Amino acid sequence: MTYSELSEQIFKKQSYLCVGLDTDPHKLPRHLHAEPDPVFAFNKAIIDATVDFAIAYKPNIAFYEAQGPRGWESLQKTLEYIPKDCFTIADAKRGDIGNTSDLYARTFFDPTAAGLSFDSVTVAPYMGRDSVIPFLAYKDKWVILLALTSNSGSADFQRQGIGNQELFEVVIETAKTWASPNQLMFVIGATQASELKRIRELAPDNFLLVPGVGAQGGNLADVSRWGLTKAGGLLVNASRSILYASDGIGFAASARAEAKYLQTEMAQHLSVVGE
Amino acid sequence: MTYSELSEQIFKKQSYLCVGLDTDPHKLPRHLHAEPDPVFAFNKAIIDATVDFAIAYKPNIAFYEAQGPRGWESLQKTLEYIPKDCFTIADAKRGDIGNTSDLYARTFFDPTAAGLSFDSVTVAPYMGRDSVIPFLAYKDKWVILLALTSNSGSADFQRQGIGNQELFEVVIETAKTWASPNQLMFVIGATQASELKRIRELAPDNFLLVPGVGAQGGNLADVSRWGLTKAGGLLVNASRSILYASDGIGFAASARAEAKYLQTEMAQHLSVVGE
Repeated sequence: MTYSELSEQIFKKQSYLCVGLDTDPHKLPRHLHAEPDPVFAFNKAIIDATVDFAIAYKPNIAFYEAQGPRGWESLQKTLEYIPKDCFTIADAKRGDIGNTSDLYARTFFDPTAAGLSFDSVTVAPYMGRDSVIPFLAYKDKWVILLALTSNSGSADFQRQGIGNQELFEVVIETAKTWASPNQLMFVIGATQASELKRIRELAPDNFLLVPGVGAQGGNLADVSRWGLTKAGGLLVNASRSILYASDGIGFAASARAEAKYLQTEMAQHLSVVGE
Repeated sequence: MTYSELSEQIFKKQSYLCVGLDTDPHKLPRHLHAEPDPVFAFNKAIIDATVDFAIAYKPNIAFYEAQGPRGWESLQKTLEYIPKDCFTIADAKRGDIGNTSDLYARTFFDPTAAGLSFDSVTVAPYMGRDSVIPFLAYKDKWVILLALTSNSGSADFQRQGIGNQELFEVVIETAKTWASPNQLMFVIGATQASELKRIRELAPDNFLLVPGVGAQGGNLADVSRWGLTKAGGLLVNASRSILYASDGIGFAASARAEAKYLQTEMAQHLSVVGE
Protein backbone atom coordinates (compact mmCIF):
# COMPACT_ATOMS: atom_id res chain seq x y z
CA MET A 1 0.00 0.00 0.00
CA THR A 2 1.34 3.46 -0.86
CA TYR A 3 1.53 6.52 1.38
CA SER A 4 -1.29 8.26 -0.49
CA GLU A 5 -3.51 5.16 -0.47
CA LEU A 6 -3.05 4.86 3.28
CA SER A 7 -3.78 8.55 3.73
CA GLU A 8 -6.88 8.20 1.57
CA GLN A 9 -8.20 5.32 3.69
CA ILE A 10 -7.79 7.40 6.83
CA PHE A 11 -9.95 10.23 5.53
CA LYS A 12 -12.43 7.90 3.88
CA LYS A 13 -13.05 5.85 7.02
CA GLN A 14 -12.44 8.83 9.31
CA SER A 15 -10.20 6.62 11.37
CA TYR A 16 -6.56 5.87 12.11
CA LEU A 17 -7.37 2.88 14.25
CA CYS A 18 -5.12 -0.17 14.05
CA VAL A 19 -6.51 -3.32 15.64
CA GLY A 20 -3.76 -5.40 17.22
CA LEU A 21 -4.48 -9.07 16.70
CA ASP A 22 -2.68 -10.27 19.84
CA THR A 23 -4.85 -13.35 19.86
CA ASP A 24 -4.24 -15.50 22.90
CA PRO A 25 -5.68 -19.02 22.50
CA HIS A 26 -6.21 -19.15 26.26
CA LYS A 27 -8.46 -16.09 26.23
CA LEU A 28 -10.89 -17.14 23.50
CA PRO A 29 -14.61 -17.28 24.26
CA ARG A 30 -15.54 -20.82 25.20
CA HIS A 31 -17.93 -21.37 22.27
CA LEU A 32 -15.03 -21.01 19.81
CA HIS A 33 -13.06 -23.91 21.26
CA ALA A 34 -14.95 -26.36 19.06
CA GLU A 35 -13.91 -24.60 15.84
CA PRO A 36 -11.28 -26.37 13.72
CA ASP A 37 -9.03 -23.27 14.06
CA PRO A 38 -10.29 -21.28 17.07
CA VAL A 39 -7.67 -18.53 16.66
CA PHE A 40 -8.67 -17.91 13.06
CA ALA A 41 -12.37 -18.10 13.94
CA PHE A 42 -11.83 -15.44 16.59
CA ASN A 43 -9.77 -13.20 14.29
CA LYS A 44 -12.34 -13.54 11.51
CA ALA A 45 -15.13 -12.42 13.85
CA ILE A 46 -13.01 -9.52 15.16
CA ILE A 47 -12.16 -8.38 11.62
CA ASP A 48 -15.79 -8.60 10.52
CA ALA A 49 -16.84 -6.62 13.60
CA THR A 50 -14.25 -3.86 13.33
CA VAL A 51 -13.53 -3.41 9.63
CA ASP A 52 -15.87 -0.44 9.31
CA PHE A 53 -13.84 1.44 11.90
CA ALA A 54 -10.27 0.20 11.49
CA ILE A 55 -7.82 1.00 8.72
CA ALA A 56 -5.09 -1.39 9.81
CA TYR A 57 -4.60 -4.80 11.44
CA LYS A 58 -1.49 -5.79 13.32
CA PRO A 59 -1.03 -9.45 14.23
CA ASN A 60 1.58 -9.77 16.96
CA ILE A 61 3.69 -12.59 15.56
CA ALA A 62 4.72 -13.92 18.98
CA PHE A 63 1.17 -15.05 19.65
CA TYR A 64 1.17 -17.21 16.49
CA GLU A 65 4.76 -18.43 16.77
CA ALA A 66 4.04 -19.74 20.27
CA GLN A 67 1.57 -22.19 18.68
CA GLY A 68 4.18 -23.73 16.37
CA PRO A 69 3.31 -24.66 12.78
CA ARG A 70 -0.44 -24.44 13.34
CA GLY A 71 0.02 -20.88 14.63
CA TRP A 72 1.60 -19.96 11.31
CA GLU A 73 -1.37 -21.49 9.54
CA SER A 74 -3.77 -19.38 11.62
CA LEU A 75 -1.66 -16.34 10.75
CA GLN A 76 -1.74 -17.11 7.02
CA LYS A 77 -5.52 -17.53 7.06
CA THR A 78 -5.99 -14.35 9.08
CA LEU A 79 -3.85 -12.26 6.75
CA GLU A 80 -5.66 -13.70 3.74
CA TYR A 81 -8.99 -12.72 5.29
CA ILE A 82 -8.14 -9.05 5.97
CA PRO A 83 -9.70 -6.91 3.21
CA LYS A 84 -7.13 -5.57 0.74
CA ASP A 85 -7.96 -1.93 1.48
CA CYS A 86 -6.71 -2.37 5.05
CA PHE A 87 -3.06 -1.84 5.91
CA THR A 88 -1.40 -4.90 7.45
CA ILE A 89 1.45 -4.95 9.94
CA ALA A 90 3.52 -7.96 10.96
CA ASP A 91 4.47 -6.97 14.48
CA ALA A 92 7.59 -9.08 14.57
CA LYS A 93 10.35 -6.75 15.83
CA ARG A 94 12.88 -8.51 13.61
CA GLY A 95 16.36 -7.34 12.64
CA ASP A 96 19.58 -9.20 11.89
CA ILE A 97 22.64 -8.99 9.64
CA GLY A 98 21.89 -8.31 5.97
CA ASN A 99 21.53 -11.83 4.59
CA THR A 100 19.30 -12.80 7.52
CA SER A 101 17.12 -9.69 7.40
CA ASP A 102 16.74 -10.51 3.73
CA LEU A 103 15.07 -13.77 4.79
CA TYR A 104 12.87 -12.05 7.36
CA ALA A 105 11.77 -9.65 4.61
CA ARG A 106 10.97 -12.61 2.38
CA THR A 107 9.04 -14.26 5.20
CA PHE A 108 6.67 -11.36 5.69
CA PHE A 109 6.57 -9.76 2.22
CA ASP A 110 7.01 -12.48 -0.40
CA PRO A 111 3.96 -14.77 -0.56
CA THR A 112 5.94 -17.48 -2.36
CA ALA A 113 8.16 -17.89 0.73
CA ALA A 114 6.04 -18.43 3.86
CA GLY A 115 2.67 -17.69 2.27
CA LEU A 116 2.49 -14.20 3.80
CA SER A 117 2.24 -10.80 2.16
CA PHE A 118 2.06 -8.08 4.80
CA ASP A 119 2.26 -4.38 3.92
CA SER A 120 4.78 -3.74 6.67
CA VAL A 121 6.88 -5.26 9.40
CA THR A 122 8.13 -3.84 12.69
CA VAL A 123 11.93 -3.85 12.89
CA ALA A 124 14.32 -3.33 15.81
CA PRO A 125 17.08 -0.81 15.02
CA TYR A 126 19.92 -2.06 17.23
CA MET A 127 21.91 -3.70 14.41
CA GLY A 128 21.81 -0.63 12.19
CA ARG A 129 21.50 0.15 8.51
CA ASP A 130 22.20 -3.18 6.84
CA SER A 131 19.68 -4.90 9.11
CA VAL A 132 16.93 -2.56 7.90
CA ILE A 133 17.72 -2.02 4.22
CA PRO A 134 16.66 -5.50 2.98
CA PHE A 135 13.05 -4.78 3.96
CA LEU A 136 13.03 -1.67 1.76
CA ALA A 137 13.75 -3.62 -1.42
CA TYR A 138 10.06 -4.49 -1.70
CA LYS A 139 8.02 -1.85 -3.55
CA ASP A 140 5.23 -0.25 -1.49
CA LYS A 141 6.20 -2.32 1.54
CA TRP A 142 7.13 -0.60 4.76
CA VAL A 143 9.53 -0.78 7.67
CA ILE A 144 8.06 0.34 10.98
CA LEU A 145 11.16 0.99 13.05
CA LEU A 146 11.16 0.90 16.84
CA ALA A 147 12.09 4.34 18.11
CA LEU A 148 10.51 5.01 21.50
CA THR A 149 8.53 2.13 22.93
CA SER A 150 5.82 2.29 25.58
CA ASN A 151 7.24 -0.18 28.11
CA SER A 152 9.19 0.67 31.24
CA GLY A 153 12.38 -0.82 29.73
CA SER A 154 12.40 1.95 27.12
CA ALA A 155 14.28 4.01 29.72
CA ASP A 156 17.21 1.58 29.79
CA PHE A 157 18.73 2.32 26.39
CA GLN A 158 16.32 4.33 24.21
CA ARG A 159 16.63 7.30 26.55
CA GLN A 160 20.39 7.23 26.98
CA GLY A 161 21.87 10.62 26.19
CA ILE A 162 24.01 10.94 23.09
CA GLY A 163 25.26 14.51 22.77
CA ASN A 164 22.15 16.66 23.10
CA GLN A 165 19.82 13.90 22.04
CA GLU A 166 18.46 10.65 23.35
CA LEU A 167 19.17 7.39 21.52
CA PHE A 168 15.66 7.15 20.06
CA GLU A 169 16.10 10.56 18.47
CA VAL A 170 19.38 9.47 16.91
CA VAL A 171 17.55 6.39 15.61
CA ILE A 172 14.88 8.57 13.98
CA GLU A 173 17.35 10.99 12.42
CA THR A 174 19.66 8.25 11.17
CA ALA A 175 16.89 6.06 9.76
CA LYS A 176 15.46 9.01 7.84
CA THR A 177 18.62 8.92 5.71
CA TRP A 178 17.87 5.29 4.76
CA ALA A 179 14.33 5.60 3.44
CA SER A 180 11.66 8.13 2.53
CA PRO A 181 8.42 8.52 4.48
CA ASN A 182 6.86 6.39 1.72
CA GLN A 183 8.43 3.29 3.26
CA LEU A 184 9.39 4.24 6.79
CA MET A 185 7.25 4.66 9.89
CA PHE A 186 8.31 4.80 13.51
CA VAL A 187 6.92 3.07 16.58
CA ILE A 188 6.35 5.78 19.14
CA GLY A 189 5.03 4.68 22.50
CA ALA A 190 5.13 8.21 23.83
CA THR A 191 1.96 9.40 25.41
CA GLN A 192 3.24 12.69 26.74
CA ALA A 193 2.30 15.70 24.69
CA SER A 194 5.68 17.43 24.98
CA GLU A 195 7.48 14.40 23.62
CA LEU A 196 5.18 13.80 20.71
CA LYS A 197 5.62 17.40 19.67
CA ARG A 198 9.40 16.98 19.62
CA ILE A 199 9.15 13.70 17.71
CA ARG A 200 6.82 15.23 15.14
CA GLU A 201 9.42 17.95 14.55
CA LEU A 202 12.08 15.31 13.92
CA ALA A 203 9.83 13.29 11.60
CA PRO A 204 7.26 15.69 10.14
CA ASP A 205 6.09 13.42 7.33
CA ASN A 206 6.55 9.90 8.64
CA PHE A 207 3.62 7.90 9.83
CA LEU A 208 3.87 7.07 13.53
CA LEU A 209 2.54 3.80 14.91
CA VAL A 210 1.42 4.51 18.45
CA PRO A 211 0.67 1.57 20.70
CA GLY A 212 -0.42 2.06 24.24
CA VAL A 213 -3.79 3.67 23.76
CA GLY A 214 -6.16 1.34 25.57
CA ALA A 215 -4.72 -1.42 27.70
CA GLN A 216 -1.29 0.23 27.92
CA GLY A 217 -2.86 3.49 29.05
CA GLY A 218 -2.27 6.26 26.50
CA ASN A 219 -4.25 9.37 25.84
CA LEU A 220 -5.87 9.55 22.41
CA ALA A 221 -6.48 13.30 22.52
CA ASP A 222 -2.84 14.16 23.20
CA VAL A 223 -1.52 11.63 20.71
CA SER A 224 -3.85 13.01 18.04
CA ARG A 225 -3.18 16.65 18.78
CA TRP A 226 0.56 16.33 18.28
CA GLY A 227 0.76 13.34 16.00
CA LEU A 228 -1.80 14.00 13.26
CA THR A 229 -0.69 15.59 10.00
CA LYS A 230 -2.51 16.74 6.89
CA ALA A 231 -1.90 13.25 5.47
CA GLY A 232 -3.15 11.56 8.63
CA GLY A 233 0.29 10.44 9.69
CA LEU A 234 -0.87 8.31 12.59
CA LEU A 235 -1.82 4.72 13.27
CA VAL A 236 -3.07 4.27 16.80
CA ASN A 237 -3.15 0.69 17.95
CA ALA A 238 -5.58 -0.91 20.36
CA SER A 239 -5.36 -4.62 21.09
CA ARG A 240 -6.70 -6.01 24.33
CA SER A 241 -9.32 -3.29 24.85
CA ILE A 242 -10.97 -4.40 21.59
CA LEU A 243 -10.21 -8.15 21.46
CA TYR A 244 -11.30 -8.81 25.00
CA ALA A 245 -13.96 -6.12 25.39
CA SER A 246 -16.17 -8.94 26.58
CA ASP A 247 -15.54 -12.66 26.72
CA GLY A 248 -18.87 -14.33 26.11
CA ILE A 249 -20.96 -15.03 23.05
CA GLY A 250 -21.18 -11.27 22.40
CA PHE A 251 -17.41 -10.66 22.17
CA ALA A 252 -17.59 -9.45 18.57
CA ALA A 253 -20.40 -6.98 19.25
CA SER A 254 -18.42 -5.62 22.20
CA ALA A 255 -15.31 -5.36 20.04
CA ARG A 256 -17.31 -3.50 17.41
CA ALA A 257 -18.66 -1.06 20.00
CA GLU A 258 -15.17 -0.36 21.34
CA ALA A 259 -13.74 0.15 17.83
CA LYS A 260 -16.62 2.43 16.94
CA TYR A 261 -16.08 4.43 20.12
CA LEU A 262 -12.42 4.99 19.24
CA GLN A 263 -13.23 5.80 15.60
CA THR A 264 -15.83 8.37 16.64
CA GLU A 265 -13.25 10.20 18.71
CA MET A 266 -10.73 9.92 15.87
CA ALA A 267 -13.19 11.48 13.42
CA GLN A 268 -13.41 14.50 15.70
CA HIS A 269 -9.62 14.86 15.83
CA LEU A 270 -9.39 14.46 12.04
CA SER A 271 -11.92 17.22 11.50
CA VAL A 272 -9.53 19.65 13.20
CA VAL A 273 -6.65 18.61 10.91
CA GLY A 274 -8.81 19.06 7.85
CA GLU A 275 -9.67 22.67 8.71
CA MET B 1 22.15 -26.72 30.46
CA THR B 2 24.03 -25.15 33.37
CA TYR B 3 27.18 -23.02 33.27
CA SER B 4 29.30 -25.80 34.69
CA GLU B 5 27.87 -28.42 32.34
CA LEU B 6 28.67 -26.19 29.38
CA SER B 7 32.15 -25.57 30.70
CA GLU B 8 32.63 -29.30 31.20
CA GLN B 9 31.64 -30.04 27.59
CA ILE B 10 34.18 -27.52 26.35
CA PHE B 11 37.07 -29.19 28.12
CA LYS B 12 35.83 -32.69 27.37
CA LYS B 13 35.52 -32.11 23.64
CA GLN B 14 38.41 -29.62 23.60
CA SER B 15 36.22 -27.33 21.57
CA TYR B 16 34.14 -24.20 21.81
CA LEU B 17 32.79 -24.54 18.29
CA CYS B 18 29.19 -23.64 17.60
CA VAL B 19 27.82 -24.76 14.26
CA GLY B 20 25.35 -22.26 12.83
CA LEU B 21 22.53 -24.10 11.08
CA ASP B 22 21.74 -21.31 8.59
CA THR B 23 20.30 -23.88 6.26
CA ASP B 24 19.29 -22.37 2.94
CA PRO B 25 16.99 -24.70 0.95
CA HIS B 26 18.39 -23.20 -2.25
CA LYS B 27 21.93 -24.23 -1.38
CA LEU B 28 21.35 -27.90 -0.58
CA PRO B 29 23.27 -30.56 -2.48
CA ARG B 30 21.14 -31.77 -5.37
CA HIS B 31 20.87 -35.37 -4.17
CA LEU B 32 18.95 -34.21 -1.08
CA HIS B 33 16.14 -32.62 -3.08
CA ALA B 34 14.33 -35.97 -3.27
CA GLU B 35 14.18 -36.32 0.55
CA PRO B 36 10.76 -35.75 2.17
CA ASP B 37 12.32 -32.94 4.24
CA PRO B 38 15.53 -31.84 2.51
CA VAL B 39 16.37 -29.21 5.15
CA PHE B 40 16.15 -31.75 7.97
CA ALA B 41 18.06 -34.34 5.93
CA PHE B 42 20.85 -31.81 5.42
CA ASN B 43 20.92 -30.74 9.09
CA LYS B 44 20.95 -34.36 10.23
CA ALA B 45 23.96 -35.10 8.04
CA ILE B 46 25.74 -31.94 9.25
CA ILE B 47 25.07 -32.78 12.90
CA ASP B 48 26.29 -36.37 12.45
CA ALA B 49 29.42 -35.09 10.71
CA THR B 50 30.32 -32.39 13.21
CA VAL B 51 29.11 -33.61 16.59
CA ASP B 52 32.54 -34.89 17.63
CA PHE B 53 33.95 -31.39 17.25
CA ALA B 54 31.09 -29.05 18.10
CA ILE B 55 29.65 -28.27 21.52
CA ALA B 56 26.75 -26.12 20.31
CA TYR B 57 24.31 -25.78 17.43
CA LYS B 58 22.63 -22.55 16.46
CA PRO B 59 19.74 -22.67 13.98
CA ASN B 60 19.14 -19.22 12.54
CA ILE B 61 15.37 -18.98 12.87
CA ALA B 62 14.95 -16.71 9.82
CA PHE B 63 15.96 -19.56 7.53
CA TYR B 64 13.16 -21.75 8.89
CA GLU B 65 10.53 -19.05 9.24
CA ALA B 66 10.97 -18.14 5.56
CA GLN B 67 9.64 -21.61 4.71
CA GLY B 68 6.38 -21.12 6.58
CA PRO B 69 4.84 -23.95 8.65
CA ARG B 70 7.00 -26.66 7.06
CA GLY B 71 10.09 -24.65 8.04
CA TRP B 72 8.97 -24.86 11.67
CA GLU B 73 8.57 -28.58 11.28
CA SER B 74 12.12 -28.89 9.94
CA LEU B 75 13.28 -26.82 12.91
CA GLN B 76 11.45 -29.03 15.42
CA LYS B 77 12.94 -32.19 13.92
CA THR B 78 16.42 -30.68 13.84
CA LEU B 79 16.30 -29.60 17.47
CA GLU B 80 15.00 -33.02 18.47
CA TYR B 81 17.92 -34.64 16.66
CA ILE B 82 20.70 -32.62 18.32
CA PRO B 83 22.27 -34.76 21.09
CA LYS B 84 21.30 -33.60 24.59
CA ASP B 85 24.92 -32.93 25.63
CA CYS B 86 25.14 -30.17 23.00
CA PHE B 87 24.10 -26.62 23.82
CA THR B 88 21.36 -25.28 21.55
CA ILE B 89 20.77 -21.68 20.53
CA ALA B 90 17.67 -20.28 18.84
CA ASP B 91 19.21 -17.41 16.91
CA ALA B 92 16.02 -15.40 16.78
CA LYS B 93 17.00 -11.89 17.92
CA ARG B 94 13.62 -11.46 19.58
CA GLY B 95 12.59 -8.82 22.12
CA ASP B 96 9.28 -7.09 22.81
CA ILE B 97 7.24 -5.73 25.72
CA GLY B 98 6.91 -8.06 28.69
CA ASN B 99 3.77 -10.01 27.83
CA THR B 100 5.03 -10.56 24.27
CA SER B 101 8.56 -11.56 25.27
CA ASP B 102 6.86 -13.98 27.58
CA LEU B 103 5.36 -15.66 24.51
CA TYR B 104 8.67 -15.65 22.65
CA ALA B 105 10.22 -17.33 25.70
CA ARG B 106 7.47 -19.95 25.65
CA THR B 107 7.99 -20.46 21.93
CA PHE B 108 11.64 -21.37 22.27
CA PHE B 109 11.84 -22.81 25.78
CA ASP B 110 8.55 -24.55 26.57
CA PRO B 111 8.11 -27.72 24.50
CA THR B 112 4.35 -27.78 25.17
CA ALA B 113 3.98 -24.49 23.25
CA ALA B 114 5.60 -24.71 19.81
CA GLY B 115 7.29 -28.07 20.32
CA LEU B 116 10.72 -26.49 20.87
CA SER B 117 13.05 -26.65 23.85
CA PHE B 118 16.22 -24.70 23.15
CA ASP B 119 18.82 -24.01 25.84
CA SER B 120 19.05 -20.36 24.84
CA VAL B 121 17.74 -17.64 22.59
CA THR B 122 19.40 -14.54 21.17
CA VAL B 123 17.63 -11.35 22.27
CA ALA B 124 17.87 -7.75 21.03
CA PRO B 125 18.33 -5.27 23.88
CA TYR B 126 16.70 -2.14 22.43
CA MET B 127 13.47 -2.43 24.47
CA GLY B 128 15.28 -2.85 27.78
CA ARG B 129 14.83 -4.81 30.96
CA ASP B 130 11.22 -5.99 30.78
CA SER B 131 11.80 -7.31 27.26
CA VAL B 132 14.61 -9.56 28.52
CA ILE B 133 13.43 -10.68 31.97
CA PRO B 134 10.71 -13.12 30.76
CA PHE B 135 13.35 -15.35 29.16
CA LEU B 136 15.14 -15.66 32.51
CA ALA B 137 12.16 -17.25 34.24
CA TYR B 138 13.13 -20.63 32.78
CA LYS B 139 15.61 -22.53 34.94
CA ASP B 140 18.94 -23.31 33.24
CA LYS B 141 17.83 -21.50 30.07
CA TRP B 142 19.85 -18.61 28.76
CA VAL B 143 19.51 -15.20 27.17
CA ILE B 144 22.24 -14.38 24.67
CA LEU B 145 21.97 -10.61 24.40
CA LEU B 146 23.16 -8.67 21.38
CA ALA B 147 25.94 -6.34 22.47
CA LEU B 148 28.39 -5.68 19.63
CA THR B 149 27.48 -7.31 16.34
CA SER B 150 29.78 -8.08 13.43
CA ASN B 151 27.94 -6.27 10.64
CA SER B 152 28.74 -2.82 9.27
CA GLY B 153 25.51 -1.43 10.74
CA SER B 154 26.87 -2.03 14.24
CA ALA B 155 28.50 1.39 13.88
CA ASP B 156 25.15 3.16 13.56
CA PHE B 157 23.89 2.82 17.12
CA GLN B 158 25.95 0.28 19.08
CA ARG B 159 28.99 2.51 18.89
CA GLN B 160 27.27 5.77 19.77
CA GLY B 161 29.05 7.46 22.65
CA ILE B 162 27.24 7.67 25.96
CA GLY B 163 29.43 9.47 28.47
CA ASN B 164 32.78 7.70 28.29
CA GLN B 165 31.30 4.52 26.93
CA GLU B 166 29.76 3.23 23.75
CA LEU B 167 26.16 1.99 23.74
CA PHE B 168 27.17 -1.68 23.58
CA GLU B 169 29.19 -1.24 26.75
CA VAL B 170 26.19 0.32 28.50
CA VAL B 171 24.15 -2.66 27.32
CA ILE B 172 26.65 -5.09 28.85
CA GLU B 173 26.91 -3.25 32.16
CA THR B 174 23.16 -2.76 32.48
CA ALA B 175 22.25 -6.32 31.54
CA LYS B 176 24.69 -7.69 34.09
CA THR B 177 22.38 -6.25 36.76
CA TRP B 178 19.48 -8.33 35.38
CA ALA B 179 20.99 -11.80 35.42
CA SER B 180 24.00 -13.76 36.57
CA PRO B 181 26.53 -15.28 34.17
CA ASN B 182 24.63 -18.54 34.71
CA GLN B 183 21.88 -17.32 32.40
CA LEU B 184 23.36 -14.43 30.44
CA MET B 185 25.76 -14.46 27.50
CA PHE B 186 26.58 -11.68 25.08
CA VAL B 187 26.88 -11.67 21.30
CA ILE B 188 30.21 -10.08 20.50
CA GLY B 189 31.08 -9.70 16.85
CA ALA B 190 34.33 -7.97 17.69
CA THR B 191 37.36 -9.41 16.02
CA GLN B 192 39.86 -6.80 17.12
CA ALA B 193 42.06 -7.84 19.99
CA SER B 194 41.92 -4.50 21.79
CA GLU B 195 38.15 -4.53 21.87
CA LEU B 196 37.81 -8.07 23.06
CA LYS B 197 40.16 -7.32 25.90
CA ARG B 198 37.99 -4.38 26.97
CA ILE B 199 34.80 -6.45 26.70
CA ARG B 200 36.31 -9.26 28.75
CA GLU B 201 37.08 -6.74 31.48
CA LEU B 202 33.44 -5.62 31.47
CA ALA B 203 32.11 -9.17 31.50
CA PRO B 204 34.79 -11.36 33.06
CA ASP B 205 32.58 -14.38 33.70
CA ASN B 206 29.92 -14.28 30.99
CA PHE B 207 30.11 -16.58 28.04
CA LEU B 208 30.56 -14.67 24.78
CA LEU B 209 29.03 -15.90 21.55
CA VAL B 210 31.31 -14.78 18.75
CA PRO B 211 30.06 -15.02 15.20
CA GLY B 212 32.18 -13.92 12.32
CA VAL B 213 34.91 -16.51 12.42
CA GLY B 214 34.80 -18.10 9.00
CA ALA B 215 32.57 -16.56 6.34
CA GLN B 216 32.36 -13.21 8.14
CA GLY B 217 36.16 -13.04 8.44
CA GLY B 218 37.21 -13.16 12.10
CA ASN B 219 40.45 -14.27 13.60
CA LEU B 220 40.21 -17.30 15.85
CA ALA B 221 43.59 -16.76 17.51
CA ASP B 222 42.76 -13.20 18.63
CA VAL B 223 39.26 -14.10 19.72
CA SER B 224 40.59 -17.00 21.76
CA ARG B 225 43.49 -15.11 23.31
CA TRP B 226 41.25 -12.42 24.77
CA GLY B 227 37.96 -14.24 25.07
CA LEU B 228 38.81 -17.56 26.72
CA THR B 229 38.47 -17.92 30.47
CA LYS B 230 39.23 -20.72 32.92
CA ALA B 231 35.64 -21.91 32.40
CA GLY B 232 35.94 -21.72 28.65
CA GLY B 233 33.73 -18.67 28.37
CA LEU B 234 33.53 -18.67 24.58
CA LEU B 235 31.30 -20.05 21.88
CA VAL B 236 32.72 -19.36 18.44
CA ASN B 237 30.24 -19.78 15.65
CA ALA B 238 30.91 -20.92 12.11
CA SER B 239 28.05 -21.36 9.67
CA ARG B 240 28.62 -21.13 5.96
CA SER B 241 32.27 -22.26 6.10
CA ILE B 242 31.07 -25.58 7.53
CA LEU B 243 27.63 -26.05 5.93
CA TYR B 244 28.81 -25.27 2.43
CA ALA B 245 32.39 -26.51 2.66
CA SER B 246 31.56 -28.43 -0.50
CA ASP B 247 28.28 -28.82 -2.32
CA GLY B 248 28.33 -32.30 -3.83
CA ILE B 249 27.72 -35.77 -2.46
CA GLY B 250 30.66 -35.29 -0.08
CA PHE B 251 29.28 -32.19 1.67
CA ALA B 252 29.13 -33.87 5.08
CA ALA B 253 32.71 -35.14 4.88
CA SER B 254 33.86 -31.64 3.94
CA ALA B 255 31.85 -30.17 6.81
CA ARG B 256 33.46 -32.67 9.19
CA ALA B 257 36.95 -31.77 7.97
CA GLU B 258 36.28 -28.05 8.44
CA ALA B 259 34.83 -28.58 11.94
CA LYS B 260 37.77 -30.77 12.89
CA TYR B 261 40.21 -28.17 11.60
CA LEU B 262 38.62 -25.49 13.80
CA GLN B 263 38.43 -27.82 16.81
CA THR B 264 42.10 -28.71 16.47
CA GLU B 265 43.05 -25.05 16.65
CA MET B 266 40.67 -24.54 19.56
CA ALA B 267 42.28 -27.41 21.49
CA GLN B 268 45.60 -25.59 21.21
CA HIS B 269 44.12 -22.36 22.56
CA LEU B 270 42.42 -24.24 25.40
CA SER B 271 45.70 -25.85 26.42
CA VAL B 272 47.08 -22.37 27.15
CA VAL B 273 44.09 -21.49 29.36
CA GLY B 274 44.48 -24.71 31.28
CA GLU B 275 48.08 -24.03 32.21
